[in-house]
Amino acid sequence: MDALFDRHQPTLAAAQKAAQARGYWSAYPEIPSGKIYGETAKDEGLASYNARLGKLFELPAHPATTTVGDEVSPFGPALGITYPASDPETLISASLTAAPQWAAASVETRVGICLEILARLNRLSFEMANAVMNTTGQAFAMAFQAGGPHAQDRGLEAVAYAYTEMVRTPPEATWTKPQGKGEPIVLEKHWRIVPRGISLVIGCQTFPTWNSYPGLFASLATGNTVIVKPHPGAILPLAITISVMREVLSEEGFLPDIVLLAADAPGAEITRDLVQNDAVSLIDYTGSSSFGEWVRNHAGNAQVYTEEAGVNSIVIASTDDFAGMCANIAFSLSLYSGQMCTAPQNIYVPKAGIGSNEGHKSFDDVANGIVAAIDDLLADPARAAGICGAIANPTTMARVESVLSLGKVIRRSAPVAAGEARTATPLILAVQADQTAVYEEERFGPITFIIAVADAADGVGRANSLARRKGAITAALYETDEKRLATAVDAFAASGVNLSINLTGAIFVNQSAAFSDFHVTGANPSGNASLTDAAFVANRFRTVMWRRPKAA
Amino acid sequence: MDALFDRHQPTLAAAQKAAQARGYWSAYPEIPSGKIYGETAKDEGLASYNARLGKLFELPAHPATTTVGDEVSPFGPALGITYPASDPETLISASLTAAPQWAAASVETRVGICLEILARLNRLSFEMANAVMNTTGQAFAMAFQAGGPHAQDRGLEAVAYAYTEMVRTPPEATWTKPQGKGEPIVLEKHWRIVPRGISLVIGCQTFPTWNSYPGLFASLATGNTVIVKPHPGAILPLAITISVMREVLSEEGFLPDIVLLAADAPGAEITRDLVQNDAVSLIDYTGSSSFGEWVRNHAGNAQVYTEEAGVNSIVIASTDDFAGMCANIAFSLSLYSGQMCTAPQNIYVPKAGIGSNEGHKSFDDVANGIVAAIDDLLADPARAAGICGAIANPTTMARVESVLSLGKVIRRSAPVAAGEARTATPLILAVQADQTAVYEEERFGPITFIIAVADAADGVGRANSLARRKGAITAALYETDEKRLATAVDAFAASGVNLSINLTGAIFVNQSAAFSDFHVTGANPSGNASLTDAAFVANRFRTVMWRRPKAA
Repeated sequence: MDALFDRHQPTLAAAQKAAQARGYWSAYPEIPSGKIYGETAKDEGLASYNARLGKLFELPAHPATTTVGDEVSPFGPALGITYPASDPETLISASLTAAPQWAAASVETRVGICLEILARLNRLSFEMANAVMNTTGQAFAMAFQAGGPHAQDRGLEAVAYAYTEMVRTPPEATWTKPQGKGEPIVLEKHWRIVPRGISLVIGCQTFPTWNSYPGLFASLATGNTVIVKPHPGAILPLAITISVMREVLSEEGFLPDIVLLAADAPGAEITRDLVQNDAVSLIDYTGSSSFGEWVRNHAGNAQVYTEEAGVNSIVIASTDDFAGMCANIAFSLSLYSGQMCTAPQNIYVPKAGIGSNEGHKSFDDVANGIVAAIDDLLADPARAAGICGAIANPTTMARVESVLSLGKVIRRSAPVAAGEARTATPLILAVQADQTAVYEEERFGPITFIIAVADAADGVGRANSLARRKGAITAALYETDEKRLATAVDAFAASGVNLSINLTGAIFVNQSAAFSDFHVTGANPSGNASLTDAAFVANRFRTVMWRRPKAA
Repeated sequence: MDALFDRHQPTLAAAQKAAQARGYWSAYPEIPSGKIYGETAKDEGLASYNARLGKLFELPAHPATTTVGDEVSPFGPALGITYPASDPETLISASLTAAPQWAAASVETRVGICLEILARLNRLSFEMANAVMNTTGQAFAMAFQAGGPHAQDRGLEAVAYAYTEMVRTPPEATWTKPQGKGEPIVLEKHWRIVPRGISLVIGCQTFPTWNSYPGLFASLATGNTVIVKPHPGAILPLAITISVMREVLSEEGFLPDIVLLAADAPGAEITRDLVQNDAVSLIDYTGSSSFGEWVRNHAGNAQVYTEEAGVNSIVIASTDDFAGMCANIAFSLSLYSGQMCTAPQNIYVPKAGIGSNEGHKSFDDVANGIVAAIDDLLADPARAAGICGAIANPTTMARVESVLSLGKVIRRSAPVAAGEARTATPLILAVQADQTAVYEEERFGPITFIIAVADAADGVGRANSLARRKGAITAALYETDEKRLATAVDAFAASGVNLSINLTGAIFVNQSAAFSDFHVTGANPSGNASLTDAAFVANRFRTVMWRRPKAA
């Protein structure tokens, strides 16, 4: 039964080592290249995706009392795919039925199965790219990376952390307590890993796999059964994932219902029922802060891990590469049209301007520099489409319109190309520091405020105050003075915000790399958990002992 | 600043090694011997205790708006000690004021201070023994061990686990991402440990130090400020602890308010206000399940770790040492008059009797064997007093009276010696398996039910069903058949109950040894946390990063 573990053990060991060292490492190549994935992989992935359209998604033996499915690609067409669906009680019951078998499996068996699932998902990366692209609106290249290899890396990272924790306590030990001159007391002690129960994973629309895989794989590796509740607008990527999981589980002699799909229809979501079910012991949630708060307040005794929302900031104090800074910020604002949870919204710029390698730059110089860099980046429509993708949710389009009057428009949002209905390049508004009601609210999508502040320290203070009150997942700082930099580092650390400093070139504040960057700290309202640290996995199982006198 | 860390590093390293190996190990000798603690230590400890009676307990610079204190020894006299006391807001404010300094301290500085505190507490073990004895009713020998060295071991264990987690991520790393034929992207990344906020530790009366030290030291080591809320009947042991903590903190240049005492008066407890305060991020609670449920439901976003109550069982299937079994059970029932959270309440015995090395034993034979063993153990009043101690809470005395009619009395409870008002030897009642309303309720104190079940499997089933519904911290099994034993092991593991098998001699189901036995599994309603595993410490801090391009 541990053939899979043995086969993938080198990958696991490398992942453990990488998570410890926290340098660059990846198990799954991020380049959608035929040389890596096979010259026919791209076409086959597209064909597989197309073959699913307009049909029932087959999940053999999955409980189903009805079917649901109403996904529409942000790029236009309806997917027409339906999925097996059940009431919450049916899902809970099926999960409970499957639980004892999975709990009884060895750590190595479970981890081996998780690693095999990840390996097979990697081979499906092109199909997954099409599925993610057409549910999230991500451009193809990003959908491939974030939906495929990067999500798989995050899943592997969670498995590696879970494995490390599970083998930390030995399966058995001899306890020999001296008794002075008498014979010692000698006990044999045995420990086993016991899962918590049912794990509920609630996915989001924008990153259905990347944000779900850590909780999904951490719970599965630690012996829990899992019910995956996708966003109704992005079911397909998780349905494909679950299909692979059930396939591997079945092949290995396990009940496929160890992993279940909780597909539902918009307006008839079953999330609340699942969250409040007493059999659910673990909940992973990615989504809005408002529903996140409801989940945290209604989860009963379940352990809840959340990534919610926040307002990410850039503070510009000074730079020795003004052009590089503007280009870097331009890309961060444009990528997936600001729909990343790591994308900046607020840019704090001293009203008297900043020093730079190009001499003094006024507030307007800085704002115009960023606008010009965006215009330059997105000048070619094809390139713009490849960066911005499409807007996942129509309400985001409406929001871009609704905020126009909130500040001085210094860059208008527009479709990435003529006739591209649901696309939008960054909208940039200039505002004053006292317009807190405008910029202290999360305005999800391609909306950026450039805020005139008293000075850089004022900007750092405002960014941190906001992070503490409303959350922030990332922050960026441009600062050439080491002493002021150190002060800012302390401030962002105290607010629990991961900070990127002086980024130029092909690395961006939005990016969070598995095995090196922890995603979300859990230390401000943007989320209560971190991908992936020990706290994210250690509470997903329990250690139970039996002991007895050791036979002489 | 790290001189303390360096001094105690060998102890820390040994603790980490012991926690990994999980054999027998202890840092603090459990024997109250003059050869170990100094020939004058016992007398000095008593003198120090006596010197505190009838006075204000001095905690220099501790916030205080009033004084409280109404402790009465279960052995008779009122202690007459008063303690500085404040309203919750004053305590929270003082804790927040002290927080930044402690958060900024290095991991090594904080851990070094924790280890120095433990070393000093160890030297106060005789004074602590008197304090614990006269607030809990434990006999002196137990008060010394459980209140002193064993509690210190549990504190050290928590520090060791916390240290292991905090140094798991390196303080810095270089991240080098290849870019095909281009120059790699090279970032320097820095991580720091950030505490959660204020940690509230809610103590219980029966084990004020043993049950509080793990959360207290885990939170302190990870950089949180701590407010300790003792049970109004057992303030002194924690006040002594806090006095030592504030002394060491002050000596090392820290604000003593990093650790605060939240003493309050019976009937005017401030616990609820503290639990519901938004500034409280971590809560450790030991106490009743009913108030535990309230804490869990009103803690907001605070992470809550609980040890609540349960009903512990013994199942007797067969034994190859009938006399040894009866003697072992007799001691477990008598020790501290059943007031340990690990003490058994229910003993399931097949109604047709069991096989033993002395031949067939009927149900009555087994019950009478246990009763006779108790009578024998407690025949000498001085010895009985040394085992049973006194009853901490008058309601426990009343409970012993109130349950008399619930079953067939096969052993009456009595004072351990004539005139010892608040002492009680075990009450044993025989009941039938269908009297679930009688024995499925927790009856805290020296109350045991011997339950006639269909057979051993029925007993295992009932014990586990009860553990899943109402919690159990321990279970014991006497079984000579390896196959049935294995089945029972699986059942108790699935219920999250630590199981002791065939114990005879000087090792008891009640005992939980630091560095080897996890106390409470967190996998049934008797508690949601375990002393001490990674899950108990890993969520008490966060890891925050800053990164920037690495200078060439």
